[in-house]
Amino acid sequence: MSSTFGRFLRVTTFGESHGPGLGGVVDGMPPGIPLAREHLQRELDRRRPGQSAVTTQRQEGDQVELLSGVFEGLTTGTPIAFLVRNQDARPEDYEALREVFRPGHADYTYFVKYGHRDHRGGGRASGRETLCRVAAGAIARRLLAPLGVEIFAATVRIGDIEARERDYPEAERNPVRAPDAAAAAAMAELLLRLRDAGDSVGGVVEVVARNVPAGLGDPVFDKLDAVLAMAMMSIGTIKGVEIGDGFAATRLRGSQAHDAMDATGFLSNHAGGILGGISTGQDILMRLAIKPTSSLRVPQQSLNIRGEPVAVATEGRHDPCVCPRVVPVAEAMMALTLADAWLAQKAVRALG
Amino acid sequence: MSSTFGRFLRVTTFGESHGPGLGGVVDGMPPGIPLAREHLQRELDRRRPGQSAVTTQRQEGDQVELLSGVFEGLTTGTPIAFLVRNQDARPEDYEALREVFRPGHADYTYFVKYGHRDHRGGGRASGRETLCRVAAGAIARRLLAPLGVEIFAATVRIGDIEARERDYPEAERNPVRAPDAAAAAAMAELLLRLRDAGDSVGGVVEVVARNVPAGLGDPVFDKLDAVLAMAMMSIGTIKGVEIGDGFAATRLRGSQAHDAMDATGFLSNHAGGILGGISTGQDILMRLAIKPTSSLRVPQQSLNIRGEPVAVATEGRHDPCVCPRVVPVAEAMMALTLADAWLAQKAVRALG
Amino acid sequence: MSSTFGRFLRVTTFGESHGPGLGGVVDGMPPGIPLAREHLQRELDRRRPGQSAVTTQRQEGDQVELLSGVFEGLTTGTPIAFLVRNQDARPEDYEALREVFRPGHADYTYFVKYGHRDHRGGGRASGRETLCRVAAGAIARRLLAPLGVEIFAATVRIGDIEARERDYPEAERNPVRAPDAAAAAAMAELLLRLRDAGDSVGGVVEVVARNVPAGLGDPVFDKLDAVLAMAMMSIGTIKGVEIGDGFAATRLRGSQAHDAMDATGFLSNHAGGILGGISTGQDILMRLAIKPTSSLRVPQQSLNIRGEPVAVATEGRHDPCVCPRVVPVAEAMMALTLADAWLAQKAVRALG
Amino acid sequence: MSSTFGRFLRVTTFGESHGPGLGGVVDGMPPGIPLAREHLQRELDRRRPGQSAVTTQRQEGDQVELLSGVFEGLTTGTPIAFLVRNQDARPEDYEALREVFRPGHADYTYFVKYGHRDHRGGGRASGRETLCRVAAGAIARRLLAPLGVEIFAATVRIGDIEARERDYPEAERNPVRAPDAAAAAAMAELLLRLRDAGDSVGGVVEVVARNVPAGLGDPVFDKLDAVLAMAMMSIGTIKGVEIGDGFAATRLRGSQAHDAMDATGFLSNHAGGILGGISTGQDILMRLAIKPTSSLRVPQQSLNIRGEPVAVATEGRHDPCVCPRVVPVAEAMMALTLADAWLAQKAVRALG
Repeated sequence: MSSTFGRFLRVTTFGESHGPGLGGVVDGMPPGIPLAREHLQRELDRRRPGQSAVTTQRQEGDQVELLSGVFEGLTTGTPIAFLVRNQDARPEDYEALREVFRPGHADYTYFVKYGHRDHRGGGRASGRETLCRVAAGAIARRLLAPLGVEIFAATVRIGDIEARERDYPEAERNPVRAPDAAAAAAMAELLLRLRDAGDSVGGVVEVVARNVPAGLGDPVFDKLDAVLAMAMMSIGTIKGVEIGDGFAATRLRGSQAHDAMDATGFLSNHAGGILGGISTGQDILMRLAIKPTSSLRVPQQSLNIRGEPVAVATEGRHDPCVCPRVVPVAEAMMALTLADAWLAQKAVRALG
Repeated sequence: MSSTFGRFLRVTTFGESHGPGLGGVVDGMPPGIPLAREHLQRELDRRRPGQSAVTTQRQEGDQVELLSGVFEGLTTGTPIAFLVRNQDARPEDYEALREVFRPGHADYTYFVKYGHRDHRGGGRASGRETLCRVAAGAIARRLLAPLGVEIFAATVRIGDIEARERDYPEAERNPVRAPDAAAAAAMAELLLRLRDAGDSVGGVVEVVARNVPAGLGDPVFDKLDAVLAMAMMSIGTIKGVEIGDGFAATRLRGSQAHDAMDATGFLSNHAGGILGGISTGQDILMRLAIKPTSSLRVPQQSLNIRGEPVAVATEGRHDPCVCPRVVPVAEAMMALTLADAWLAQKAVRALG
Repeated sequence: MSSTFGRFLRVTTFGESHGPGLGGVVDGMPPGIPLAREHLQRELDRRRPGQSAVTTQRQEGDQVELLSGVFEGLTTGTPIAFLVRNQDARPEDYEALREVFRPGHADYTYFVKYGHRDHRGGGRASGRETLCRVAAGAIARRLLAPLGVEIFAATVRIGDIEARERDYPEAERNPVRAPDAAAAAAMAELLLRLRDAGDSVGGVVEVVARNVPAGLGDPVFDKLDAVLAMAMMSIGTIKGVEIGDGFAATRLRGSQAHDAMDATGFLSNHAGGILGGISTGQDILMRLAIKPTSSLRVPQQSLNIRGEPVAVATEGRHDPCVCPRVVPVAEAMMALTLADAWLAQKAVRALG
Repeated sequence: MSSTFGRFLRVTTFGESHGPGLGGVVDGMPPGIPLAREHLQRELDRRRPGQSAVTTQRQEGDQVELLSGVFEGLTTGTPIAFLVRNQDARPEDYEALREVFRPGHADYTYFVKYGHRDHRGGGRASGRETLCRVAAGAIARRLLAPLGVEIFAATVRIGDIEARERDYPEAERNPVRAPDAAAAAAMAELLLRLRDAGDSVGGVVEVVARNVPAGLGDPVFDKLDAVLAMAMMSIGTIKGVEIGDGFAATRLRGSQAHDAMDATGFLSNHAGGILGGISTGQDILMRLAIKPTSSLRVPQQSLNIRGEPVAVATEGRHDPCVCPRVVPVAEAMMALTLADAWLAQKAVRALG
């Protein structure tokens, strides 16, 4: 009971990895905004696996269909539903996993929570769920576009290989989506090696939002950084989030850590674009900790649903590192969060 | 429009640092649970500043009053309201700050968001807001107690001084709330030095929940770790959160990072007690990045509301490091989140 | 931004009358409940127009598809999505109405609210929207079935013709869905006359829920009768709702109006099964006031979007009285409301 | 778990009839609106019982205190909390009722729902709960005032005595709050007679909102009339609501029932100011069915919590008809609903 995100721009998603399809409903989109199927498809194409040797070979030629909420090319203000049919599903790949708890997966916890689960490819817990986020994020971007908001994410570290530059257009050109061509090459090489070994590795994705209006976010529980933390942490493989200086701030003195202002505005951005939970107008800057993929060909010790020991190795199609695939998803969650906060602020300054 | 946390156990808080008082309403508490004013007061006393030389000297002898929802010593199932009157308020301390944006504070963003603000001591953005969380958390703990859930937080690093041990009872005995007596002494010494220098420092607080039932949390957006990330990040000074191995997981191989199982259960806890957003029954383990306090006697360059340059130094009463004060707040947010998830699970397994 | 109903069993609907399709997502359904496409289809067939001379001739052979949330015949606890493709859409029937505000329709208000609308057949404001309610209600009924809850609605008055009996099975056998065969014949005759005259008429639908567990509903704002009133009033043509004695109670003395108890339980049911917003365990009894259909062949004076006077007559396919079509929709809203309240009560008595 | 009303302007209330006090938190009020304690007190004084021989003699000299959200006379955008201490509580009046279920009261249902209840004066189910609504409504009125919205309610029928006129100022001058001086005199006479007989009677209250902006309300589930129905039906004694022609519309032909338009706008208001769930800009007109008061000196047959038969007569202080006391409460609920819908519309037309 949790498949809805947002309070003003509300996204509800559905679908399992190997069921008939996945989709969502975006409610609260203002009327009169140009929106077409292609806006969603373009982002889904960026998310699509099977694009290079370093990502899973599952051919997800996902085609999205718009079911409602758009008339003669413009949003109507009513719910926008979209649907992506599952294709290239191979449930038989998963038959061996019907009764097994794969380490690092949600198999065990779904079993405990629900007592009954769709084991095929993780069902609802599949990474495939993120296509609904990406499609919904494409809608949110249409709302943010006239405000000039720009959102970029990129892989800034894989294992110990760190990107030194922040050349965001470069991130669209290499398969690991690193904003640094040299680092990208080293990262790709590492991933090919791990792929051959049947192993995987973690990394860090950075997300930046530019031209965000000041004043977004709410005090106390719904601080903009709190909602962003939730948005990002809800992506399956993320084990940590930080904003601005993040964990590095814990080693600083107060006299070094805060952002002075002069008549031109802020002189630094330690805060990452948010103060007291409200956007300052500076860039919003987050970093996400991504764990190594759980699906490995290296056998791991586990249990089945009868409590018997089993060795689990995944023969399916999987990524040695999901950072490049997290990139469009993190952008989508940033877009959804900012669009929601922007609509909320309209009610706050209702008298303005 | 954000002063509510939780979906089943819903906490709504109110109040400003120097207004008449602060308080909250907890709705959704099941009936028949023993609850007294003292349960709240005890946690508020733990939170109270002015307890040592290393915390702010403001004497907040906060006395909480229960206004509703309890009858003859038991909860009735109706909303539980509580109120703490402000005392020892010295708004005149803040008169000089009426038109000034303090670096690292919410002054600027509240001004931009609302156009009108209560500048006294940060108003709603004051750290004093956290007393409502602590009081509400004390109520949530009453719900969790019969389940055997135990929650501890402690300061595990201040600046570069790291706690080596995890002796939680020790954390209640030293003023920095470190679970390691030797580290605590070094931390306290650092804080006294910074206090004399009018400066501040950041640190890391760790939060652990034990005996959490497996199956709590929801797939997709309301994953237990996502909600916990939001809960923690909504505490004013927190710039990062991680769960289990967190950012350290980003450097691991998949073959090292996941938790194998044998007939006795999980053999490790890299995941931090949550898989696929749902609790495993292992300890939930989080770490929080705390930035250096923003209120400094060291002057900082800033602006006033007319855009004129000013130098800001805070003469009020403030902490050189807020880690010890975050400890009970983080525990409270953990308690509120788990209690909410536990109630949610009752509806999920409604037929069980 | 309103296409969601319920707090625990949450239904989100989408779709326009003449777009690609309509559907919905039901989130919060507990796992392990037998559910098949046929459960939804059966209720949709009951709702379907074109079943007799007294209802609209639009042939809506609606076929529903289940898209998620069911695996091997059982609910999984994840969102259940369903989709009905639009067929027999004739948007050209509506081209003449593109710029016209039909009296009694939502044309004018959608135009004012959104500035941009899908005028075809009312778009989102079409009565066709109710098929999503009926499909979702069929899901809710699966949750209520094991509790023994039974829900019936019937047309108890059309214009001045009143049903004297409450023979619910009879209501399924006649085209006006009246629980009284003699009254049904008179009603049908009236409707055929009005149909020929191009006019329409209002009526009253009664809804009864039996074997409802006592204790459902919440005090204060979410009283069970308040939520039911909202649920029913949200059906397009309903202008009034009453519970138990309803408006008739306003003429009674207190000594006549309340329900005495003896050892066998309540001795009457003036209250309609709800006291203080909480179910008593008696039958829940509501009556709904249905206005005459707005689509008439009799020309009516109106305006177009440029403020020019126009005469509007609807040539499309419409009902002289919507009471028979409200019947399954009212049942669905009753089912959704009770299922939601039943899940909510699980959290209230979490410790029981 | 239901003590919150509204989505944008969110009111959360708390408190029992004979506990320490009652109050509420209003979250989402825009900043910069002049608001003082007196705005709330004035409405509470209108609600206050003990104002005439025909209302209960309990002396509730309720004094409200503003606890937060207002600074230097203006709202700050943060939650506005208010508190009213209980005085003149006489719990001993209720000791005899500790184990008794009073007919027509919530005693039995609270017992079944919670297993534990505050029996004193109905606890949370007391009519005294409505003072929180009235105080919150006074805040909502401050938001609506600059829009020119005016809200009136009045008693238009008691038993069979009907008001013929709609002289709203008159309703403030007579104790039954009827908008017709002659009818008011007859009503008052009836009430004195019933009071002497220890009996009570029902009636009808009408609520009107003028100058409501067109475009408020949402399609489908959150139609403005649906939310208003919920808002009104959530007032304890209300058993029916209707809008515009309401139940009378059920006897009309379509050709008589709809509101034609010419260049000057609508020519009638059968719809009651709402079409398709969205305000038209005409007056919103509702009527509420109020049941006879449940507290009678005439003994009634009932049970105690052990299932034993008892005769219940209420010796406390009670009204022979609550219509006059419903008037300010219904106005408050109208104000809260419209204010919420007006804020929601800001997000809908965010790009306008």
